[in-house]
Amino acid sequence: MTLNVYLSGEIHTDWRVEVVQGCEGLDIAFTGPVTDHAASDDCGVAILGAEADKFWHDRKGAGVNAIRTRHGIENADVVVVRFGEKYKQWNAAFDAGYASALGKPVIVMHMPEHAHALKEVDEAARAVAETPAQVAQILRYVMTGKLPA
Amino acid sequence: MTLNVYLSGEIHTDWRVEVVQGCEGLDIAFTGPVTDHAASDDCGVAILGAEADKFWHDRKGAGVNAIRTRHGIENADVVVVRFGEKYKQWNAAFDAGYASALGKPVIVMHMPEHAHALKEVDEAARAVAETPAQVAQILRYVMTGKLPA
Amino acid sequence: MTLNVYLSGEIHTDWRVEVVQGCEGLDIAFTGPVTDHAASDDCGVAILGAEADKFWHDRKGAGVNAIRTRHGIENADVVVVRFGEKYKQWNAAFDAGYASALGKPVIVMHMPEHAHALKEVDEAARAVAETPAQVAQILRYVMTGKLPA
Amino acid sequence: MTLNVYLSGEIHTDWRVEVVQGCEGLDIAFTGPVTDHAASDDCGVAILGAEADKFWHDRKGAGVNAIRTRHGIENADVVVVRFGEKYKQWNAAFDAGYASALGKPVIVMHMPEHAHALKEVDEAARAVAETPAQVAQILRYVMTGKLPA
Amino acid sequence: MTLNVYLSGEIHTDWRVEVVQGCEGLDIAFTGPVTDHAASDDCGVAILGAEADKFWHDRKGAGVNAIRTRHGIENADVVVVRFGEKYKQWNAAFDAGYASALGKPVIVMHMPEHAHALKEVDEAARAVAETPAQVAQILRYVMTGKLPA
Amino acid sequence: MTLNVYLSGEIHTDWRVEVVQGCEGLDIAFTGPVTDHAASDDCGVAILGAEADKFWHDRKGAGVNAIRTRHGIENADVVVVRFGEKYKQWNAAFDAGYASALGKPVIVMHMPEHAHALKEVDEAARAVAETPAQVAQILRYVMTGKLPA
Amino acid sequence: MTLNVYLSGEIHTDWRVEVVQGCEGLDIAFTGPVTDHAASDDCGVAILGAEADKFWHDRKGAGVNAIRTRHGIENADVVVVRFGEKYKQWNAAFDAGYASALGKPVIVMHMPEHAHALKEVDEAARAVAETPAQVAQILRYVMTGKLPA
Amino acid sequence: MTLNVYLSGEIHTDWRVEVVQGCEGLDIAFTGPVTDHAASDDCGVAILGAEADKFWHDRKGAGVNAIRTRHGIENADVVVVRFGEKYKQWNAAFDAGYASALGKPVIVMHMPEHAHALKEVDEAARAVAETPAQVAQILRYVMTGKLPA
Repeated sequence: MTLNVYLSGEIHTDWRVEVVQGCEGLDIAFTGPVTDHAASDDCGVAILGAEADKFWHDRKGAGVNAIRTRHGIENADVVVVRFGEKYKQWNAAFDAGYASALGKPVIVMHMPEHAHALKEVDEAARAVAETPAQVAQILRYVMTGKLPA
Repeated sequence: MTLNVYLSGEIHTDWRVEVVQGCEGLDIAFTGPVTDHAASDDCGVAILGAEADKFWHDRKGAGVNAIRTRHGIENADVVVVRFGEKYKQWNAAFDAGYASALGKPVIVMHMPEHAHALKEVDEAARAVAETPAQVAQILRYVMTGKLPA
Repeated sequence: MTLNVYLSGEIHTDWRVEVVQGCEGLDIAFTGPVTDHAASDDCGVAILGAEADKFWHDRKGAGVNAIRTRHGIENADVVVVRFGEKYKQWNAAFDAGYASALGKPVIVMHMPEHAHALKEVDEAARAVAETPAQVAQILRYVMTGKLPA
Repeated sequence: MTLNVYLSGEIHTDWRVEVVQGCEGLDIAFTGPVTDHAASDDCGVAILGAEADKFWHDRKGAGVNAIRTRHGIENADVVVVRFGEKYKQWNAAFDAGYASALGKPVIVMHMPEHAHALKEVDEAARAVAETPAQVAQILRYVMTGKLPA
Repeated sequence: MTLNVYLSGEIHTDWRVEVVQGCEGLDIAFTGPVTDHAASDDCGVAILGAEADKFWHDRKGAGVNAIRTRHGIENADVVVVRFGEKYKQWNAAFDAGYASALGKPVIVMHMPEHAHALKEVDEAARAVAETPAQVAQILRYVMTGKLPA
Repeated sequence: MTLNVYLSGEIHTDWRVEVVQGCEGLDIAFTGPVTDHAASDDCGVAILGAEADKFWHDRKGAGVNAIRTRHGIENADVVVVRFGEKYKQWNAAFDAGYASALGKPVIVMHMPEHAHALKEVDEAARAVAETPAQVAQILRYVMTGKLPA
Repeated sequence: MTLNVYLSGEIHTDWRVEVVQGCEGLDIAFTGPVTDHAASDDCGVAILGAEADKFWHDRKGAGVNAIRTRHGIENADVVVVRFGEKYKQWNAAFDAGYASALGKPVIVMHMPEHAHALKEVDEAARAVAETPAQVAQILRYVMTGKLPA
Repeated sequence: MTLNVYLSGEIHTDWRVEVVQGCEGLDIAFTGPVTDHAASDDCGVAILGAEADKFWHDRKGAGVNAIRTRHGIENADVVVVRFGEKYKQWNAAFDAGYASALGKPVIVMHMPEHAHALKEVDEAARAVAETPAQVAQILRYVMTGKLPA
């Protein structure tokens, strides 16, 4: 049975690639948000027409992106949420809350210095990791019962 | 992963064909109501026996059609609802409400002159488009992250 | 046990008053949309600030109104949807679809000449009435088991 | 019918008091997280015993607080989420996501400068306000149909 | 906390009165279908207009009655279904199936000679009783922990 | 997309074969209860050990059969329930109620003389048929939009 | 708003009394299983008739008790599960699993020596306490935000 | 259609192998917990880092294991729970409760001497077996309608 894993959060490093590579050989289908930052920001107006007001420019794009992200989360067996070093990343926390309310098992990934600020998110998670390698090891263990050597 | 898209609403133009063609190459399974107007109106009595009263003639047909339309909407990942230029199209709005209550992402398509009358429907939607090409572009972006050139 | 009844749809005649009066003495709590048309149209911008674009003016208002209407429908035991003689009334059909998907019993009220156009909505309803008096009689029967004399 | 409103997010200003005062005379029951910052941080260890490791100190407290916050959100008719000027406020975004997934109408409140970073959260909301007064006006309109003079 | 108990099934004997009397002093709110057989059969046409065809005469009435019965079952904490000595009583079995699918605890009441024919219904029930007194004793035990002397 | 159709009810005629043959060429997966009457009655004790008391003999079998029937209904897109000419057939009505509460579209099949006794079941159905051929025609129309010639 | 708290598990000590006393002054409605061991064991046969086989004697009682326990858990805002020093207490663990699957916040109470055996149950809980006083302190904090002095 | 069967509970005998072998030739996908006891106990710390406190060592592992076990149960069509001769086995009872609350059909397997202690668990089950062969026979009957020779 294929495991559907949604990779939410930070889009400025290649952590998704690391997770995917670490899961080589496993029957996992990975999904996630559009990681092309410019396309993600402008998809609404690029397709549906320009907006004079930045607020509605953003709204249009957020609506289109939500079709993809909600679909990904709702069809996921596991949701991984990565908090990076920069930016507010409220959408990552939003996704974690959304996934939790749906009863999806959540794996949170962040640096130790964010632990206090993320304590509510961590509490709602099944596992709190620091590195993509750890996430991959968890997924491998979940699917095969094998621990890293 | 195949995306299931239900195309609800107006059945007098070929907009469904345009959407489907615009999505060529994408792994999308399109469903929708029966678009043969006469068959749709008469399916109940044609199969289950004539009715003297037009109201029950309609009821029988609506029951049979509902098996198809509800199944389509409930199994859809995305519901597109098109409001055309003519008729009351209450079934389109009904489908939009039905899909919204199920938490399905809805894309509404209509001419600008209907915007005020459709404001409650638009508010419940993730995207409001005017043309089949825009709908196809949204679906392509949702699946591939690529914007139209 | 109080019965919660949501009265959706047409806001230009006093049908809600007739239903309420016809239910005198019954333990029913009636809710419904804001029926002050101007307030309903402008609530978004009046509270949250003006919009240059009519589309977003409408969106803001529709969002605020949706807080009330969704809450009313989701807490209703019975949803009555009235289609009047004028306008597109897509929000009425939207509400009927929304209520149906939630499994709420729906009573539709409309003139016979709309029966064909409303056949999908009628099929989803438990009862199709023409007058407020009939709606009140249904509610009285549902609560007391008594038929009109 | 009492409206249950959960006031989530920032706990360092008195915005909750302003919302409550602005809703004077309305039948609203307000709930929210514990706003005593020290108690909120230490409730786990204060009741269940000290932890040597700060991570588990936080976990214990987050678990206890979650009993209150989840209960509040799950029983709310409307969830208001305030993003303040400082801190990461990931728990506010988490609550917004959680409430959205449950289908609760969300009102977001934040300064305009956070609009781009909060675009996904705003898109999931029924209304985006800047001030407690606006939140109170929305709640008053939702309950009474009256706009501010 | 009031216990809501729906008394479904046979309407030709006074078993409901016996259950209610046997529960004297307990905080139980009993609901059930309309037990006036004639009113129940004719409510649809009496309120909404005559039908030439008996099938649609019945349909109209069944729709109106369903508003009451579904509401009663969906709001019940316990559903009691009585199968009497006569008639097909398919609506009783339908109610038992409906309640079971909603996860409601079901108490079935019937004579021993119907046990084999009702084995699927009995298997879905928490208790199988033969008399109204037993049903009342179960409800009293459930609420007070006291067994009959 | 394969349509899953559960064929519930009467097991003494070959109506299931007729439906299946009438749907030749359609992508439908049919399921249903065990139709070997003796096996169905005795499966519990045959596998899990004899019972002295017929009531518990039946209970054991009903439990084992319920694993199959519930699974079939819960995974069905359409549930067909046939009432035959003989026996009480309470399990058929139970299945109809169970399927209705799950929101499954139900097609009921029975002779006209049972119409009054089945009026509540019929009201909950999308279509009321008399013959296996009609059921097959409905399924063919639902899947292809084609009416019988 | 009254908080509904279900006290599951061990019935041989007076821990429920201690929790209730520790919550004096709080608006909490406590529920729980029947704690009269003999009545709990015999309720099925005492009301519904004797059984020759102990297995079915137990089954009848468990069915009747389940009406109470399931109702209590499903209506609870918080479920407390106490594991005592003796017996297998599988029903306590069953209740914890049942409550977890419903998304209820669970507070587990047990001695430290059971921690390893209960690790899966503890992981599903929001809080792990050792004493009734701690449970009462958690409930007081959840409702008032006040920590023990 | 493949039947998904989750095999929960005791991990010290080869009962899972016996069930799987007894189901040879059937289209069943079996899942279950990690049965390597050491890996199961240590998976949390092996991947996510050591813990000084045994309680949190266990918690980390239980969180990781829960990703697998919950996923397995939530995707199962049938859940089999085996209680062995030794240990507390509270996680088995927890799984039975969890599966029951999700409406999954549960088959319990245990020795007769545990029947009284497991009466609440048995009551929630569709079948109570003593041997892996019986479980396999039930699954074979459910899928094929054939009883053991």
